[in-house]
Amino acid sequence: MSVRIVGLDADDTLWHSEKIFRLTHDRFNELLAPFADSQTLEARLAETERRNLSVFGYGAKGFTLSMLETALDVSERKVTTDVLAEILAAGREMMTHPVEPLPGVHAALEALEAEHRLVLITKGDLFHQESKLAASGLGEFFSGVEIVSEKSADTYRDVFRRYGEGAEHAVMAGNSVRSDILPALEAGSYAALIPYPIVWVNEAADAPTAHPRFKELESLADLPAWLAEIP
Amino acid sequence: MSVRIVGLDADDTLWHSEKIFRLTHDRFNELLAPFADSQTLEARLAETERRNLSVFGYGAKGFTLSMLETALDVSERKVTTDVLAEILAAGREMMTHPVEPLPGVHAALEALEAEHRLVLITKGDLFHQESKLAASGLGEFFSGVEIVSEKSADTYRDVFRRYGEGAEHAVMAGNSVRSDILPALEAGSYAALIPYPIVWVNEAADAPTAHPRFKELESLADLPAWLAEIP
Repeated sequence: MSVRIVGLDADDTLWHSEKIFRLTHDRFNELLAPFADSQTLEARLAETERRNLSVFGYGAKGFTLSMLETALDVSERKVTTDVLAEILAAGREMMTHPVEPLPGVHAALEALEAEHRLVLITKGDLFHQESKLAASGLGEFFSGVEIVSEKSADTYRDVFRRYGEGAEHAVMAGNSVRSDILPALEAGSYAALIPYPIVWVNEAADAPTAHPRFKELESLADLPAWLAEIP
Repeated sequence: MSVRIVGLDADDTLWHSEKIFRLTHDRFNELLAPFADSQTLEARLAETERRNLSVFGYGAKGFTLSMLETALDVSERKVTTDVLAEILAAGREMMTHPVEPLPGVHAALEALEAEHRLVLITKGDLFHQESKLAASGLGEFFSGVEIVSEKSADTYRDVFRRYGEGAEHAVMAGNSVRSDILPALEAGSYAALIPYPIVWVNEAADAPTAHPRFKELESLADLPAWLAEIP
Protein backbone atom coordinates (compact mmCIF):
# COMPACT_ATOMS: atom_id res chain seq x y z
CA MET A 1 0.00 0.00 0.00
CA SER A 2 1.38 3.30 -1.14
CA VAL A 3 -0.19 5.54 1.47
CA ARG A 4 1.12 4.85 4.97
CA ILE A 5 0.33 8.05 6.75
CA VAL A 6 -2.88 10.06 6.96
CA GLY A 7 -2.74 13.74 7.83
CA LEU A 8 -6.02 15.12 9.09
CA ASP A 9 -7.15 18.68 9.49
CA ALA A 10 -9.10 19.38 12.68
CA ASP A 11 -11.59 22.28 12.52
CA ASP A 12 -14.53 21.47 10.22
CA THR A 13 -12.95 18.17 9.26
CA LEU A 14 -13.20 16.35 12.59
CA TRP A 15 -15.57 18.68 14.39
CA HIS A 16 -17.65 21.82 13.85
CA SER A 17 -15.77 25.08 14.12
CA GLU A 18 -16.89 27.51 11.41
CA LYS A 19 -20.48 26.94 12.51
CA ILE A 20 -19.52 28.28 15.94
CA PHE A 21 -17.65 31.20 14.37
CA ARG A 22 -20.81 31.90 12.30
CA LEU A 23 -23.01 31.97 15.39
CA THR A 24 -20.58 34.41 16.97
CA HIS A 25 -20.62 36.54 13.80
CA ASP A 26 -24.43 36.64 13.98
CA ARG A 27 -24.30 37.73 17.59
CA PHE A 28 -21.72 40.39 16.70
CA ASN A 29 -23.91 41.72 13.86
CA GLU A 30 -26.90 41.86 16.14
CA LEU A 31 -25.03 43.71 18.88
CA LEU A 32 -23.68 46.30 16.45
CA ALA A 33 -26.84 46.70 14.37
CA PRO A 34 -27.33 50.28 15.72
CA PHE A 35 -24.11 51.30 13.94
CA ALA A 36 -24.08 49.42 10.62
CA ASP A 37 -25.87 46.78 8.58
CA SER A 38 -24.69 43.16 8.57
CA GLN A 39 -22.96 43.42 5.23
CA THR A 40 -20.87 46.40 6.31
CA LEU A 41 -20.06 44.73 9.62
CA GLU A 42 -18.96 41.52 7.89
CA ALA A 43 -16.75 43.47 5.52
CA ARG A 44 -15.17 45.53 8.29
CA LEU A 45 -14.56 42.51 10.50
CA ALA A 46 -12.99 40.55 7.63
CA GLU A 47 -10.74 43.54 6.91
CA THR A 48 -9.66 43.77 10.57
CA GLU A 49 -8.98 40.04 10.68
CA ARG A 50 -6.86 40.18 7.53
CA ARG A 51 -4.89 43.12 8.88
CA ASN A 52 -4.32 41.35 12.20
CA LEU A 53 -3.43 37.94 10.80
CA SER A 54 0.31 38.68 10.74
CA VAL A 55 0.18 39.77 14.40
CA PHE A 56 -2.38 37.39 15.93
CA GLY A 57 -2.18 34.32 13.70
CA TYR A 58 -5.24 32.05 13.54
CA GLY A 59 -7.69 31.19 16.24
CA ALA A 60 -10.48 32.25 18.54
CA LYS A 61 -8.46 34.62 20.75
CA GLY A 62 -7.26 36.70 17.82
CA PHE A 63 -10.77 36.63 16.38
CA THR A 64 -12.18 37.99 19.64
CA LEU A 65 -9.61 40.81 19.68
CA SER A 66 -10.53 41.60 16.06
CA MET A 67 -14.24 41.72 16.95
CA LEU A 68 -13.54 44.19 19.76
CA GLU A 69 -11.37 46.36 17.52
CA THR A 70 -14.03 46.38 14.79
CA ALA A 71 -16.77 47.26 17.29
CA LEU A 72 -14.77 50.27 18.50
CA ASP A 73 -13.96 51.38 14.95
CA VAL A 74 -17.36 50.91 13.35
CA SER A 75 -19.14 52.74 16.18
CA GLU A 76 -16.48 55.46 16.31
CA ARG A 77 -16.07 54.37 19.94
CA LYS A 78 -19.75 55.03 20.68
CA VAL A 79 -20.42 51.35 21.41
CA THR A 80 -21.41 50.71 25.05
CA THR A 81 -19.23 48.79 27.45
CA ASP A 82 -22.13 46.35 27.89
CA VAL A 83 -21.87 45.44 24.22
CA LEU A 84 -18.09 45.07 24.49
CA ALA A 85 -18.53 42.84 27.53
CA GLU A 86 -20.97 40.72 25.51
CA ILE A 87 -18.46 40.39 22.67
CA LEU A 88 -15.81 39.30 25.17
CA ALA A 89 -18.24 36.75 26.59
CA ALA A 90 -19.13 35.49 23.09
CA GLY A 91 -15.41 34.96 22.39
CA ARG A 92 -14.98 33.06 25.62
CA GLU A 93 -18.00 30.89 24.78
CA MET A 94 -16.42 29.95 21.45
CA MET A 95 -13.37 28.74 23.37
CA THR A 96 -15.36 26.66 25.84
CA HIS A 97 -17.99 25.40 23.38
CA PRO A 98 -18.48 21.61 23.59
CA VAL A 99 -16.55 19.75 20.90
CA GLU A 100 -18.80 17.59 18.79
CA PRO A 101 -17.14 15.17 16.31
CA LEU A 102 -18.83 15.35 12.88
CA PRO A 103 -21.06 12.39 11.94
CA GLY A 104 -19.08 9.29 10.98
CA VAL A 105 -15.71 10.69 12.10
CA HIS A 106 -15.19 8.32 15.01
CA ALA A 107 -15.81 5.20 12.89
CA ALA A 108 -13.70 6.56 10.02
CA LEU A 109 -10.71 7.20 12.30
CA GLU A 110 -11.05 3.72 13.73
CA ALA A 111 -10.95 2.21 10.22
CA LEU A 112 -8.04 4.44 9.11
CA GLU A 113 -6.00 3.80 12.22
CA ALA A 114 -6.06 0.05 11.61
CA GLU A 115 -3.89 0.45 8.50
CA HIS A 116 -2.21 3.85 8.75
CA ARG A 117 -0.54 6.22 11.12
CA LEU A 118 -2.72 9.25 11.76
CA VAL A 119 -1.37 12.73 12.37
CA LEU A 120 -3.51 15.72 13.22
CA ILE A 121 -2.21 18.77 11.33
CA THR A 122 -3.90 22.01 12.16
CA LYS A 123 -3.40 25.72 12.28
CA GLY A 124 -4.80 27.85 15.02
CA ASP A 125 -4.25 28.35 18.64
CA LEU A 126 -2.07 25.66 20.26
CA PHE A 127 -3.84 25.72 23.59
CA HIS A 128 -7.35 25.82 22.14
CA GLN A 129 -6.64 23.05 19.60
CA GLU A 130 -5.16 20.75 22.25
CA SER A 131 -8.17 21.44 24.48
CA LYS A 132 -10.55 20.62 21.64
CA LEU A 133 -8.75 17.38 20.79
CA ALA A 134 -8.90 16.33 24.44
CA ALA A 135 -12.59 17.24 24.65
CA SER A 136 -13.41 15.41 21.40
CA GLY A 137 -12.33 12.03 22.73
CA LEU A 138 -10.50 11.40 19.42
CA GLY A 139 -6.97 11.85 20.78
CA GLU A 140 -6.29 8.11 21.09
CA PHE A 141 -6.41 7.62 17.30
CA PHE A 142 -3.46 9.91 16.59
CA SER A 143 0.24 9.05 16.53
CA GLY A 144 1.01 12.73 16.56
CA VAL A 145 -0.44 16.19 16.76
CA GLU A 146 1.17 19.02 14.80
CA ILE A 147 -0.17 22.46 15.46
CA VAL A 148 1.48 24.68 12.89
CA SER A 149 1.42 28.39 12.24
CA GLU A 150 1.12 28.01 8.47
CA LYS A 151 0.21 25.09 6.17
CA SER A 152 2.69 25.29 3.31
CA ALA A 153 4.15 22.57 1.08
CA ASP A 154 7.25 22.67 3.32
CA THR A 155 5.10 22.12 6.41
CA TYR A 156 3.68 18.93 4.89
CA ARG A 157 7.08 17.73 3.63
CA ASP A 158 8.54 18.21 7.08
CA VAL A 159 5.68 16.60 9.03
CA PHE A 160 5.33 13.61 6.69
CA ARG A 161 9.08 13.01 6.74
CA ARG A 162 9.10 13.03 10.53
CA TYR A 163 6.14 10.67 10.85
CA GLY A 164 6.76 8.28 7.99
CA GLU A 165 8.44 7.66 4.67
CA GLY A 166 7.76 11.14 3.37
CA ALA A 167 5.11 13.11 1.54
CA GLU A 168 4.82 10.59 -1.36
CA HIS A 169 3.43 8.03 1.07
CA ALA A 170 0.97 10.37 2.71
CA VAL A 171 -2.51 11.71 2.17
CA MET A 172 -3.84 14.93 3.63
CA ALA A 173 -7.57 15.16 4.30
CA GLY A 174 -9.34 18.37 5.11
CA ASN A 175 -11.99 20.91 4.18
CA SER A 176 -9.79 23.74 2.93
CA VAL A 177 -8.56 23.71 -0.67
CA ARG A 178 -6.09 26.42 0.14
CA SER A 179 -4.59 24.99 3.34
CA ASP A 180 -5.13 21.22 3.16
CA ILE A 181 -5.22 20.39 -0.55
CA LEU A 182 -3.01 22.63 -2.71
CA PRO A 183 0.13 22.66 -0.50
CA ALA A 184 -0.15 18.89 0.20
CA LEU A 185 -0.33 18.17 -3.55
CA GLU A 186 2.64 20.49 -4.09
CA ALA A 187 4.57 18.52 -1.47
CA GLY A 188 3.92 15.31 -3.48
CA SER A 189 1.16 13.85 -1.30
CA TYR A 190 -2.33 12.72 -2.07
CA ALA A 191 -5.09 15.03 -0.95
CA ALA A 192 -8.75 14.43 -0.10
CA LEU A 193 -11.13 17.36 0.08
CA ILE A 194 -14.06 16.86 2.41
CA PRO A 195 -16.11 20.00 1.92
CA TYR A 196 -17.79 21.66 4.86
CA PRO A 197 -20.87 23.77 4.09
CA ILE A 198 -19.24 27.01 5.27
CA VAL A 199 -15.77 28.19 4.25
CA TRP A 200 -13.98 31.08 5.91
CA VAL A 201 -13.64 33.85 3.33
CA ASN A 202 -9.84 33.90 3.75
CA GLU A 203 -9.62 30.17 2.89
CA ALA A 204 -11.69 30.12 -0.31
CA ALA A 205 -10.03 28.65 -3.45
CA ASP A 206 -10.93 26.40 -6.42
CA ALA A 207 -10.48 22.65 -6.09
CA PRO A 208 -7.86 21.11 -8.45
CA THR A 209 -10.42 18.60 -9.78
CA ALA A 210 -8.19 17.28 -12.57
CA HIS A 211 -5.15 16.51 -10.41
CA PRO A 212 -4.31 12.76 -10.42
CA ARG A 213 -3.60 12.68 -6.67
CA PHE A 214 -6.72 14.62 -5.70
CA LYS A 215 -10.16 13.36 -4.73
CA GLU A 216 -13.23 15.11 -3.43
CA LEU A 217 -15.13 12.98 -0.92
CA GLU A 218 -18.52 13.42 0.62
CA SER A 219 -17.38 12.46 4.07
CA LEU A 220 -14.35 11.19 5.97
CA ALA A 221 -16.11 7.81 5.97
CA ASP A 222 -15.23 7.51 2.24
CA LEU A 223 -11.50 7.99 2.77
CA PRO A 224 -10.55 4.34 3.57
CA ALA A 225 -12.14 3.16 0.31
CA TRP A 226 -10.27 5.73 -1.77
CA LEU A 227 -6.96 4.87 -0.07
CA ALA A 228 -7.57 1.19 -0.84
CA GLU A 229 -7.76 2.08 -4.58
CA ILE A 230 -4.37 3.80 -4.60
CA PRO A 231 -1.83 1.31 -5.97
CA MET B 1 30.12 13.89 27.44
CA SER B 2 26.95 13.04 29.29
CA VAL B 3 24.81 15.95 28.13
CA ARG B 4 24.05 15.83 24.41
CA ILE B 5 20.98 17.96 24.16
CA VAL B 6 20.26 21.43 25.51
CA GLY B 7 16.68 22.55 26.03
CA LEU B 8 16.26 26.29 26.23
CA ASP B 9 13.36 28.34 27.43
CA ALA B 10 12.57 31.39 25.29
CA ASP B 11 10.89 34.30 27.10
CA ASP B 12 13.24 35.95 29.62
CA THR B 13 15.92 33.36 28.89
CA LEU B 14 16.78 34.30 25.30
CA TRP B 15 15.04 37.66 25.11
CA HIS B 16 13.09 40.13 27.25
CA SER B 17 9.43 39.35 27.72
CA GLU B 18 8.35 40.00 31.31
CA LYS B 19 9.82 43.50 31.02
CA ILE B 20 7.38 44.17 28.18
CA PHE B 21 4.51 42.66 30.17
CA ARG B 22 5.53 44.96 33.07
CA LEU B 23 5.43 48.05 30.88
CA THR B 24 1.96 47.02 29.72
CA HIS B 25 0.88 46.47 33.34
CA ASP B 26 2.09 49.99 34.17
CA ARG B 27 0.10 51.42 31.28
CA PHE B 28 -2.95 49.43 32.39
CA ASN B 29 -2.65 50.73 35.98
CA GLU B 30 -2.32 54.27 34.73
CA LEU B 31 -5.35 54.01 32.45
CA LEU B 32 -7.53 52.58 35.21
CA ALA B 33 -6.24 54.80 38.03
CA PRO B 34 -9.64 56.60 38.21
CA PHE B 35 -11.23 53.32 39.37
CA ALA B 36 -8.71 51.64 41.68
CA ASP B 37 -5.17 51.89 43.03
CA SER B 38 -2.31 49.91 41.44
CA GLN B 39 -2.30 47.24 44.11
CA THR B 40 -5.99 46.48 43.65
CA LEU B 41 -5.62 46.52 39.88
CA GLU B 42 -2.68 44.11 40.01
CA ALA B 43 -4.59 41.76 42.27
CA ARG B 44 -7.72 41.83 40.11
CA LEU B 45 -5.77 41.32 36.89
CA ALA B 46 -3.83 38.40 38.38
CA GLU B 47 -7.12 36.87 39.51
CA THR B 48 -8.65 37.26 36.03
CA GLU B 49 -5.55 35.74 34.42
CA ARG B 50 -5.63 32.76 36.77
CA ARG B 51 -9.31 32.20 36.09
CA ASN B 52 -8.78 32.43 32.33
CA LEU B 53 -5.66 30.26 32.15
CA SER B 54 -7.65 27.07 31.52
CA VAL B 55 -9.51 28.75 28.65
CA PHE B 56 -6.85 31.01 27.09
CA GLY B 57 -3.57 29.27 27.95
CA TYR B 58 -0.42 31.40 28.08
CA GLY B 59 0.53 34.36 25.95
CA ALA B 60 -0.04 37.95 24.98
CA LYS B 61 -3.45 37.50 23.31
CA GLY B 62 -4.99 35.90 26.38
CA PHE B 63 -3.32 38.55 28.55
CA THR B 64 -4.89 41.29 26.45
CA LEU B 65 -8.34 39.70 26.77
CA SER B 66 -7.81 39.44 30.54
CA MET B 67 -6.85 43.14 30.73
CA LEU B 68 -10.04 44.12 28.91
CA GLU B 69 -12.16 41.90 31.13
CA THR B 70 -10.55 43.32 34.28
CA ALA B 71 -11.03 46.90 33.03
CA LEU B 72 -14.76 46.27 32.51
CA ASP B 73 -15.13 44.55 35.90
CA VAL B 74 -13.09 46.94 38.03
CA SER B 75 -14.86 50.01 36.59
CA GLU B 76 -18.26 48.31 36.77
CA ARG B 77 -18.38 48.98 33.03
CA LYS B 78 -17.87 52.72 33.53
CA VAL B 79 -14.49 52.67 31.74
CA THR B 80 -14.52 54.69 28.50
CA THR B 81 -14.18 53.11 25.10
CA ASP B 82 -11.08 55.27 24.58
CA VAL B 83 -9.40 53.49 27.48
CA LEU B 84 -10.45 50.09 26.14
CA ALA B 85 -9.09 51.02 22.72
CA GLU B 86 -5.80 51.97 24.42
CA ILE B 87 -5.63 48.62 26.20
CA LEU B 88 -6.24 46.86 22.89
CA ALA B 89 -3.44 48.91 21.32
CA ALA B 90 -1.10 48.16 24.25
CA GLY B 91 -1.74 44.43 23.74
CA ARG B 92 -1.01 44.71 20.06
CA GLU B 93 2.21 46.58 20.80
CA MET B 94 3.37 43.74 23.05
CA MET B 95 2.89 41.38 20.12
CA THR B 96 4.81 43.52 17.67
CA HIS B 97 7.51 44.69 20.08
CA PRO B 98 11.03 44.26 18.65
CA VAL B 99 12.73 41.10 19.91
CA GLU B 100 16.01 41.84 21.58
CA PRO B 101 18.25 38.86 22.52
CA LEU B 102 19.58 39.23 26.08
CA PRO B 103 23.28 40.16 26.41
CA GLY B 104 25.60 37.26 25.66
CA VAL B 105 22.87 34.97 24.34
CA HIS B 106 24.05 34.93 20.73
CA ALA B 107 27.62 33.96 21.64
CA ALA B 108 26.42 31.39 24.20
CA LEU B 109 24.19 29.65 21.64
CA GLU B 110 27.06 29.59 19.17
CA ALA B 111 29.29 27.88 21.76
CA LEU B 112 26.58 25.44 22.84
CA GLU B 113 25.60 24.53 19.30
CA ALA B 114 29.16 23.42 18.50
CA GLU B 115 28.85 20.47 20.90
CA HIS B 116 25.15 19.89 21.49
CA ARG B 117 21.79 19.82 19.80
CA LEU B 118 19.67 22.76 20.86
CA VAL B 119 15.91 22.65 21.25
CA LEU B 120 13.76 25.62 22.10
CA ILE B 121 11.06 24.56 24.56
CA THR B 122 8.52 27.18 25.41
CA LYS B 123 4.97 27.71 26.51
CA GLY B 124 2.83 30.46 25.17
CA ASP B 125 1.24 31.36 21.96
CA LEU B 126 2.47 29.31 18.98
CA PHE B 127 2.18 32.09 16.45
CA HIS B 128 3.70 34.77 18.66
CA GLN B 129 6.60 32.54 19.79
CA GLU B 130 7.46 31.56 16.21
CA SER B 131 7.30 35.21 15.19
CA LYS B 132 9.63 36.16 18.05
CA LEU B 133 12.13 33.44 17.19
CA ALA B 134 12.17 34.58 13.58
CA ALA B 135 12.60 38.22 14.64
CA SER B 136 15.38 37.36 17.10
CA GLY B 137 17.69 35.99 14.42
CA LEU B 138 18.48 33.03 16.71
CA GLY B 139 16.47 30.43 14.77
CA GLU B 140 19.50 28.97 12.97
CA PHE B 141 20.98 27.62 16.22
CA PHE B 142 18.07 25.31 16.96
CA SER B 143 17.55 21.74 15.77
CA GLY B 144 13.97 21.99 16.89
CA VAL B 145 11.32 24.24 18.32
CA GLU B 146 8.74 22.81 20.69
CA ILE B 147 5.93 25.10 21.68
CA VAL B 148 4.04 23.25 24.37
CA SER B 149 0.88 24.01 26.29
CA GLU B 150 2.33 22.85 29.62
CA LYS B 151 5.88 22.14 30.88
CA SER B 152 5.57 18.96 32.89
CA ALA B 153 8.10 16.17 33.56
CA ASP B 154 6.32 14.19 30.80
CA THR B 155 6.77 17.08 28.38
CA TYR B 156 10.54 17.02 28.94
CA ARG B 157 10.74 13.21 28.78
CA ASP B 158 8.89 13.23 25.50
CA VAL B 159 10.82 16.09 23.88
CA PHE B 160 14.27 14.83 24.99
CA ARG B 161 13.45 11.32 23.77
CA ARG B 162 12.42 12.63 20.38
CA TYR B 163 15.50 14.84 19.97
CA GLY B 164 18.18 12.66 21.50
CA GLU B 165 19.02 9.84 23.87
CA GLY B 166 16.48 10.87 26.45
CA ALA B 167 16.15 13.09 29.48
CA GLU B 168 19.27 11.70 31.25
CA HIS B 169 21.42 13.16 28.48
CA ALA B 170 19.75 16.54 28.48
CA VAL B 171 19.90 19.82 30.33
CA MET B 172 17.10 22.36 30.51
CA ALA B 173 18.04 26.01 30.92
CA GLY B 174 15.56 28.71 31.80
CA ASN B 175 14.44 31.39 34.19
CA SER B 176 11.46 29.67 35.81
CA VAL B 177 11.99 27.29 38.72
CA ARG B 178 8.48 26.02 38.34
CA SER B 179 8.40 25.45 34.58
CA ASP B 180 12.02 24.93 33.52
CA ILE B 181 13.77 23.49 36.57
CA LEU B 182 11.56 21.28 38.76
CA PRO B 183 9.84 19.27 36.00
CA ALA B 184 13.14 18.81 34.09
CA LEU B 185 14.86 17.46 37.24
CA GLU B 186 11.86 15.19 37.82
CA ALA B 187 12.26 13.88 34.26
CA GLY B 188 15.89 12.96 35.09
CA SER B 189 17.60 15.84 33.29
CA TYR B 190 20.07 18.44 34.47
CA ALA B 191 18.65 21.91 34.98
CA ALA B 192 20.26 25.34 34.91
CA LEU B 193 18.42 28.29 36.40
CA ILE B 194 19.29 31.64 34.85
CA PRO B 195 17.31 34.09 36.93
CA TYR B 196 15.64 37.05 35.32
CA PRO B 197 15.00 40.08 37.53
CA ILE B 198 11.19 39.82 37.24
CA VAL B 199 9.19 36.62 37.67
CA TRP B 200 5.53 36.33 36.78
CA VAL B 201 3.58 35.80 39.99
CA ASN B 202 2.10 32.52 38.70
CA GLU B 203 5.61 31.10 38.08
CA ALA B 204 7.22 31.84 41.46
CA ALA B 205 8.79 28.88 43.34
CA ASP B 206 11.91 28.09 45.42
CA ALA B 207 15.06 26.86 43.69
CA PRO B 208 16.14 23.28 44.59
CA THR B 209 19.65 24.50 45.50
CA ALA B 210 20.78 21.15 46.98
CA HIS B 211 19.84 18.99 44.00
CA PRO B 212 22.92 17.29 42.45
CA ARG B 213 21.75 17.95 38.88
CA PHE B 214 20.85 21.59 39.49
CA LYS B 215 22.93 24.71 39.02
CA GLU B 216 22.11 28.39 39.25
CA LEU B 217 24.02 30.45 36.71
CA GLU B 218 24.41 34.18 36.32
CA SER B 219 23.97 34.10 32.58
CA LEU B 220 23.56 31.72 29.67
CA ALA B 221 27.22 32.45 28.89
CA ASP B 222 28.15 30.27 31.91
CA LEU B 223 26.26 27.22 30.66
CA PRO B 224 28.99 25.72 28.40
CA ALA B 225 31.48 25.72 31.31
CA TRP B 226 29.04 23.93 33.62
CA LEU B 227 28.23 21.35 30.96
CA ALA B 228 31.94 20.69 30.48
CA GLU B 229 32.20 19.78 34.20
CA ILE B 230 29.46 17.14 33.99
CA PRO B 231 31.16 13.73 33.68
